[in-house]
Amino acid sequence: MRTLNHELTYATIHELSDRIRSREISPVEVAEQAILRIEEVNPALNAFVTVTAELAMKQARQAEEDIAQGRYKGALHGIPIVHKDLYYTKGIRTTASSKILKDFVPDYDSTAVAKLAEAGTVLLGKVQTHEFASGTTTNSPHFGACSNPWNLARVPGGSSGGTGAAVAAGIAYMGTGSDTGGSIRIPAACCGVVGMKPTYGRVSRYGIVPMGWTLDHAGPLTRSVMDAALSLDAMSGYDPKDESTVDLPPPGIKTEYSDSLKGVRIGLPTSYYFDNVEADVLAAVEAAIAKFKELGAEIVAVDLAKIGYARTAASAILLGELVAYHEPWLNSRPEDYGADVRMMLESGKQLTASSYLQAQRARHVLVQDFLDALSGVDVLLTPATPLTAPSADDFARTLRLAEYTMPTNVTGLPSLSMPCGFSPEGMPVNLQLIGRPFEEATVLGIGYAYEQNTDWHKRHPEL
Amino acid sequence: MRTLNHELTYATIHELSDRIRSREISPVEVAEQAILRIEEVNPALNAFVTVTAELAMKQARQAEEDIAQGRYKGALHGIPIVHKDLYYTKGIRTTASSKILKDFVPDYDSTAVAKLAEAGTVLLGKVQTHEFASGTTTNSPHFGACSNPWNLARVPGGSSGGTGAAVAAGIAYMGTGSDTGGSIRIPAACCGVVGMKPTYGRVSRYGIVPMGWTLDHAGPLTRSVMDAALSLDAMSGYDPKDESTVDLPPPGIKTEYSDSLKGVRIGLPTSYYFDNVEADVLAAVEAAIAKFKELGAEIVAVDLAKIGYARTAASAILLGELVAYHEPWLNSRPEDYGADVRMMLESGKQLTASSYLQAQRARHVLVQDFLDALSGVDVLLTPATPLTAPSADDFARTLRLAEYTMPTNVTGLPSLSMPCGFSPEGMPVNLQLIGRPFEEATVLGIGYAYEQNTDWHKRHPEL
Repeated sequence: MRTLNHELTYATIHELSDRIRSREISPVEVAEQAILRIEEVNPALNAFVTVTAELAMKQARQAEEDIAQGRYKGALHGIPIVHKDLYYTKGIRTTASSKILKDFVPDYDSTAVAKLAEAGTVLLGKVQTHEFASGTTTNSPHFGACSNPWNLARVPGGSSGGTGAAVAAGIAYMGTGSDTGGSIRIPAACCGVVGMKPTYGRVSRYGIVPMGWTLDHAGPLTRSVMDAALSLDAMSGYDPKDESTVDLPPPGIKTEYSDSLKGVRIGLPTSYYFDNVEADVLAAVEAAIAKFKELGAEIVAVDLAKIGYARTAASAILLGELVAYHEPWLNSRPEDYGADVRMMLESGKQLTASSYLQAQRARHVLVQDFLDALSGVDVLLTPATPLTAPSADDFARTLRLAEYTMPTNVTGLPSLSMPCGFSPEGMPVNLQLIGRPFEEATVLGIGYAYEQNTDWHKRHPEL
Repeated sequence: MRTLNHELTYATIHELSDRIRSREISPVEVAEQAILRIEEVNPALNAFVTVTAELAMKQARQAEEDIAQGRYKGALHGIPIVHKDLYYTKGIRTTASSKILKDFVPDYDSTAVAKLAEAGTVLLGKVQTHEFASGTTTNSPHFGACSNPWNLARVPGGSSGGTGAAVAAGIAYMGTGSDTGGSIRIPAACCGVVGMKPTYGRVSRYGIVPMGWTLDHAGPLTRSVMDAALSLDAMSGYDPKDESTVDLPPPGIKTEYSDSLKGVRIGLPTSYYFDNVEADVLAAVEAAIAKFKELGAEIVAVDLAKIGYARTAASAILLGELVAYHEPWLNSRPEDYGADVRMMLESGKQLTASSYLQAQRARHVLVQDFLDALSGVDVLLTPATPLTAPSADDFARTLRLAEYTMPTNVTGLPSLSMPCGFSPEGMPVNLQLIGRPFEEATVLGIGYAYEQNTDWHKRHPEL
């Protein structure tokens, strides 16, 4: 009988990859353990839409063979991962947790899926999202609710909630997310893992079911900042099939900050980001700020005079683009949407082009405001969310989860969500670091320094 | 008493600049002649909104002094030009031929105006456009109608009609235009001059009253293809104030074709561009095609399978962006618009974001269709307009003027409108050459070869 090796369950990619490369451990054993973990905890979590155990074992055996024959591909080789079920996977159904796509089997991989496969990863399966990443309550009405590993009565956050849950619960070492208003950073915060939304243009969205194509970002969720950097490097790069992508080398991570943050300037926005934060989140973030100071960073107040534009801009841009994508189905199969998604889409049909375009114009003002704020500091620091993961029926508070993440979907700036503490109830709290365009290495490097000097990322749910 | 030297009236920049550089003729004399020409023909044409005679003489004297002291700036030094009254000119009113902006005096120059001033040009004044470049009939209801120099009962075409008229009538050697659906190329065709709409991103639109910012292009109207190349070189370049601009050197012009077009492949679209062309235009364009063959070019039929998308895409994109710009005035000062512009804007308020965004999606398909068609040929050749300049009251035919120009506003491809003959009534006919992105040098070079071997550009209206 196979038994779980709990030493592996919560390892990071960075730790595990050394042992895989040196052949101390085989990708086959790692994959077997991950599949056992799915069997152990997924019945309670409902994180998976589709488990691809057979494929995983085949890829793991291939990885084992490749590594044995000296064809080691790098840090992700032999690492079990999951994909948000918005990412097209060739020959594997891609449902977007929706009824409309419940039997959809793409005939090609999305670019990010292909890149991660080339890096040697092992695919455990496809995981839950809100219906079309758009549901306003908890997870899909068609595939059931996904639970938070820290408290099964709480939501994992969305829309990459299945990824957050699978990574936090010790199933996958990494998973893909997509982030249109915070959908990587929110589940990272709710589940106490790391989520990295890169700069707009860094990672191809080709083959990912869109929400709003000028707001959508693809990126990783992982158990450590270093793992986020390794994953982002594998996912990023120019793709002729997504014309928003830029031709830049992988961002990497600045590790020189890990001993000291002397010389690093961190900006704290004086408005908006701390206005409505709940006390438990504020306490953890304030302790983190003190830690950054202790590590040598200079903390500076920064003004974001135009931050008020963010909410209107984000909602009009998202609604316009979302409806443009869904309108054919909305007209032909309206009853196949969940009630919340359908209501939002129907209301969006009335949005005028002028409102949409005014929002795009406001966006330009907001971008300049953030660039001005970032001209004097290395990163901005904010809470990732104003509250910890709410319970599934706490609709009003759930709606507030995106308040602090959505502005950098509008501006496209790289934003890292990472653990910085726990609420008295034992729910994780994340902070957010926001950087200048394409300076992911700095954002990740500063986050890594904090992580190296704290141990929040070493705490795991008891499952 | 000053008298007109008609030898100068219809000179090209290319001819004149040699004489200015060698100090055979002074910019002061050239400017005096141009001002005399305004006095002579503008009362009939009504091309000018504002004549800046004093400024012109001051700039001309400065040019004379600079050249005398060895500070010759290049081909445009001392050349009299006009600006479409959409281009911001510091300290000079910029009306957009509208009542709303009739007293607007910008406190900065648009980038293109500044660049042409740096090149040493002499500004004669600001010239007519349709109201906000948007009127659907003839010129501004606020500044009167501008006439066509070839027949005062005909329109000069729009919306850069004042520029077309001033260049064709022997007033200005060059003038600026802007082109959102054909507004450089149509007046060039109606007035029998050269109009160059460059690739989207080649010339900054900063400081030009917008119509639709994803369709708007700035460019020159001139009396020869070489002059268009010289002018475009001066206007083009990266501008941080217009984020659509690209960082490329000035395009220049390929002059190696002027002896022979052997090896050059010219595509004739099999659909749309010749479908509804009037007989007089078709006859002139067919004769031009024969001439291109005689010069050695290979003529190839090309298929534009998706050209049907162009019209819908252009109108929804334009309307959405136009209304987004005008909505504040439309709400506060609706009575200050002409009836036609107001009606169009009011109808545009109803356009949905989804319709706008579907049009933007169709645009991507159209771009690919054109790039495919251009992959096997150097340029596409079409009529510039389906008809010659109609009379001012011929509303139905006036509306058709943009049919052949508008597709390359949607695709952003460089498009040259140049003389290729006359109708039996004596009205000019232009052909259009369309090239690959940023290959203006090829488009202009092929046009130049044709021009060198024909004499249409040497015919001028009797005024």
